[in-house]
Amino acid sequence: MAGKDGVKACLFDVFGTVVDWRSSCIAEFQAFGKARGITADWVRITDEWRGLYQPSMEEVRAGRRPWTILDTLHRESLLTLLDRHGIADLAPHEIDHLVTMWHRLKPWPDTVPGLQRLKSRYIIGPLSNGNVGLLTRMAKHAGLPWDVILGAETAQAYKPQPQAYLRAAELLNLPTSQVMLVAAHNDDLAAAEKVGLRTAFVSRPTEYGPLQTKDFHADRAWDVVADSFLGVADAMGC
Amino acid sequence: MAGKDGVKACLFDVFGTVVDWRSSCIAEFQAFGKARGITADWVRITDEWRGLYQPSMEEVRAGRRPWTILDTLHRESLLTLLDRHGIADLAPHEIDHLVTMWHRLKPWPDTVPGLQRLKSRYIIGPLSNGNVGLLTRMAKHAGLPWDVILGAETAQAYKPQPQAYLRAAELLNLPTSQVMLVAAHNDDLAAAEKVGLRTAFVSRPTEYGPLQTKDFHADRAWDVVADSFLGVADAMGC
Repeated sequence: MAGKDGVKACLFDVFGTVVDWRSSCIAEFQAFGKARGITADWVRITDEWRGLYQPSMEEVRAGRRPWTILDTLHRESLLTLLDRHGIADLAPHEIDHLVTMWHRLKPWPDTVPGLQRLKSRYIIGPLSNGNVGLLTRMAKHAGLPWDVILGAETAQAYKPQPQAYLRAAELLNLPTSQVMLVAAHNDDLAAAEKVGLRTAFVSRPTEYGPLQTKDFHADRAWDVVADSFLGVADAMGC
Repeated sequence: MAGKDGVKACLFDVFGTVVDWRSSCIAEFQAFGKARGITADWVRITDEWRGLYQPSMEEVRAGRRPWTILDTLHRESLLTLLDRHGIADLAPHEIDHLVTMWHRLKPWPDTVPGLQRLKSRYIIGPLSNGNVGLLTRMAKHAGLPWDVILGAETAQAYKPQPQAYLRAAELLNLPTSQVMLVAAHNDDLAAAEKVGLRTAFVSRPTEYGPLQTKDFHADRAWDVVADSFLGVADAMGC
């Protein structure tokens, strides 16, 4: 059954769009610090960790290092930050626990109910820079009812590289015009639209907390503009 | 949480193990023939179609043709058989309908309840020669509660090529010793075991109907031997 305007699959940006990474990471760090008796500016460390996200992927995009999954990039960035903030003597299992907080991020309140509605009519899945293992564990932990996991390494490309979007459509055996990207980031949607995908913007105005400077609103008239996944489901006839 | 003996993911052969392809295809062909007024030996066509499955993949395994997804191989084999059986004048949408009967295969009665139990403790997903799009649509149609879809093209290899098993473990960021293959075919399990996976045999003695000549029983003492997915769940502590 084809949905609105022939769309058959709704794929989702994950970090920021599906899950609230910032609040989740801050809460994980604070709980860890309390249990371990470590005092640190965990909010700042969270923001700095996310700040290293794009530069770490850019090394791969630019071809300066071979394909590397996000779990590994997250680990490297965390080690840099622990050193910078003078946090020493963590055991390997503690480092593992911190790195995998990205597997335990919490969905926004409208995420799961919205996905359940969209799943009734469309193939739903992440189209994320997260690796397949990360996204699979996150889905089990958060109860995300994906039909399929399209992680970065299934395309061996990091968004906004065109191949990331094109390979997702190819893996679903669909023309790009039948695939819609749902994202809270205008630049992600622009890159998807450029290679033929349909687009839905969902505003997540607190994603970056007080540091948020953009993506409060849709930059342009995307195919769908909504303020929650429930709004996307409404617009898509679910 | 690690499961029995450290296993963290249970991956499944699909055609024959998860779904009853033969009864499903025969029923689809018979319904099509009746609606279209075509008389043919649909049972034989079904068995011949499955008979062309391994030879068609062997062309890819041997490197005589580039990577080709199963939907395409199924289409080519079907066209060969329609010609052989003198069935002409089908419209393109009718051919599409027949080719995609593999997206609508029915699970064995114990499949979904067994998967639900295993999902509570393990990552579950197909490790199949089916393409991602085929497996995704089959899961939606049959209600298979996969956590992740590991289709053949995520490895660009067809079982029993080692890369098919190795890449599945790699995509889940797990050592092979923490991944168990569940299959109704001894040769599939032997290939998986050779590269380090754990193994579970489930007998499906009617998979090939009266043509079944093997796989009535486990050829050897696999890690788990059961006669249904419920037995696998029992053995795996779910």
